[in-house]
Amino acid sequence: MDKIFTVRISEDKNAVEILDQTLLPNEVKYLRLDNADSLFEAIKELRVRGAPAIGIAAGFGMYVCAKRLTDGDFYNELKQLGDYLISSRPTAVNLAHAVERMLSAAKGADKESALPLLYEECMRIYDEDREMCRRISEYGLTLVKDGDGILTHCNAGALAASEYGTGLGTLLLGKELGYNFRVFSDETRPLLQGARLTSFELNHAGIDVTLICDNAASLVMSQGKIQACFVGCDRVAANGDTANKIGTRSVAINAKFHNIPFYVFCPSSTIDFGCESGEKIVIEERGADEIKTKFFEKPVAEDSVKCFNPAFDVTPAELITAIVTEKGICRYPYTQSLKELFGG
Amino acid sequence: MDKIFTVRISEDKNAVEILDQTLLPNEVKYLRLDNADSLFEAIKELRVRGAPAIGIAAGFGMYVCAKRLTDGDFYNELKQLGDYLISSRPTAVNLAHAVERMLSAAKGADKESALPLLYEECMRIYDEDREMCRRISEYGLTLVKDGDGILTHCNAGALAASEYGTGLGTLLLGKELGYNFRVFSDETRPLLQGARLTSFELNHAGIDVTLICDNAASLVMSQGKIQACFVGCDRVAANGDTANKIGTRSVAINAKFHNIPFYVFCPSSTIDFGCESGEKIVIEERGADEIKTKFFEKPVAEDSVKCFNPAFDVTPAELITAIVTEKGICRYPYTQSLKELFGG
Repeated sequence: MDKIFTVRISEDKNAVEILDQTLLPNEVKYLRLDNADSLFEAIKELRVRGAPAIGIAAGFGMYVCAKRLTDGDFYNELKQLGDYLISSRPTAVNLAHAVERMLSAAKGADKESALPLLYEECMRIYDEDREMCRRISEYGLTLVKDGDGILTHCNAGALAASEYGTGLGTLLLGKELGYNFRVFSDETRPLLQGARLTSFELNHAGIDVTLICDNAASLVMSQGKIQACFVGCDRVAANGDTANKIGTRSVAINAKFHNIPFYVFCPSSTIDFGCESGEKIVIEERGADEIKTKFFEKPVAEDSVKCFNPAFDVTPAELITAIVTEKGICRYPYTQSLKELFGG
Repeated sequence: MDKIFTVRISEDKNAVEILDQTLLPNEVKYLRLDNADSLFEAIKELRVRGAPAIGIAAGFGMYVCAKRLTDGDFYNELKQLGDYLISSRPTAVNLAHAVERMLSAAKGADKESALPLLYEECMRIYDEDREMCRRISEYGLTLVKDGDGILTHCNAGALAASEYGTGLGTLLLGKELGYNFRVFSDETRPLLQGARLTSFELNHAGIDVTLICDNAASLVMSQGKIQACFVGCDRVAANGDTANKIGTRSVAINAKFHNIPFYVFCPSSTIDFGCESGEKIVIEERGADEIKTKFFEKPVAEDSVKCFNPAFDVTPAELITAIVTEKGICRYPYTQSLKELFGG
């Protein structure tokens, strides 16, 4: 297959180029985003998705948009741009983090001197992610063995980051090193990231992957086919409570019931020490169209039927066997182990 | 809205008429089935579905097809017809049960004397189901109170039976009696019976229903919105282990985690005393097309991606708060309580 990439800066450095993931697996199409509105739309509509990739796209985006800002009120305009981008996905802490780094890099400088600093900073965000994902994956490999069955939910692979990714990085790195995993990928309704993305990228990486409906995860666990669950996450609270794609909580509860370890993979930037526990995490609600009409040939429910479409849920810390970061592996109780590892 | 029906015998008594449920909620279309192949196809493709409705359709079907059998070898041909219909859904015990009743009714009789006996028997199967569903629903109402939030999985309503249904009967009867429930309907991948059928029929019955993705059930439970889970079932083993639509097991495990009662509703014909435990229940596997292409505008996963598509799972007896039948309510341990109630 053609080598694909998730997000990069264009050769002329005037645009962010992303793979439009809403078209997968039927079409491999890249978009050139060179203004705030197209960046906002791409992040909101999940054309680029996954916490690290969104951060990288926002970093590149701040730089390419900064080139067109007026010199006089440069920093204020940059700040407005950043606030606008953040509002496209309020739950994504990496997005806010990248915007803040870019603003810090430009602070106090006029446009001419700020631009090279902004370029350096967005490239640094990108390179750091590549290195982080590799380290997370190396730690992940210490938790599993050749031949293990792994259940995944949503997508936290190379398509969600610069390379390797978080939740799938262990599988992708393991494949390179000769491990043979048998992966079961939850399709992950409503947006089907497991079907469209995870099974797509693992299949193309030559990994043994089987697609299942989210409803089948419990049966597959009961049949002894799963030795570990791997998920990424959108935000980890200081006590280890973890916000991730809707349905993650159910995977963790089922894993606990079947005595299967449940692992969360994330770069340390995903850990929000300012957020005490999962109760403080605001759950983003999305439209009914994702449930009733999106992807479907015909509506699957009547127009007059109410829907509730939360994008995330919170997995309680006590259900998480370990949180795997680029700096090491933390175990419950996380209030202590996260603080020890990160000096929080 | 137009009053709808699920399954009945035609006025001329030469065909079974069913609502084609694969077209819901976009089209209300009735099919006239007057031969074994069309009955087989309708049952296999879930045009008529739900354990009781399949039994009723099979009873009517045996009668209308019997009219065309040759007189000489009548009983043997009837038996072949029955075996053929049974093979359309091997997991559905009501189907086999209805076929056996029809065969018993005709045993030893020639065609002319058998036909009125077969007609009586299939009408009896229908009437008994109506009465049973009403009684199940009355027992169900003793378990909940006005204003309760109820989570449903799959569809076990009027569309799965003669009237009221099993899993939803309590809600439909309760509505008639002035109860106000707030129902959350799991969409129930892969065939979306919760979206297409449950939300359709509850909405038309004027019940407050909210459609959610299966993945959201755990979050909704954690938010305190659910006071009880209601499901139907395809087969109950002698120890109370229950086979039902894929994903039921996960609902039960999540309900247990959140201390929410989990109720199974079924006519006693669904209890299989010859089946010791859930381990003996064969899980039907269905095609990958239900996961990748059915209902979708475009395939949601590549052709080369493997799928595992089990139609059912087994919920362990210890996770079931009560099994509600037309003869009363059984509680754990079920080996004892089912035997006591049914003298098994």
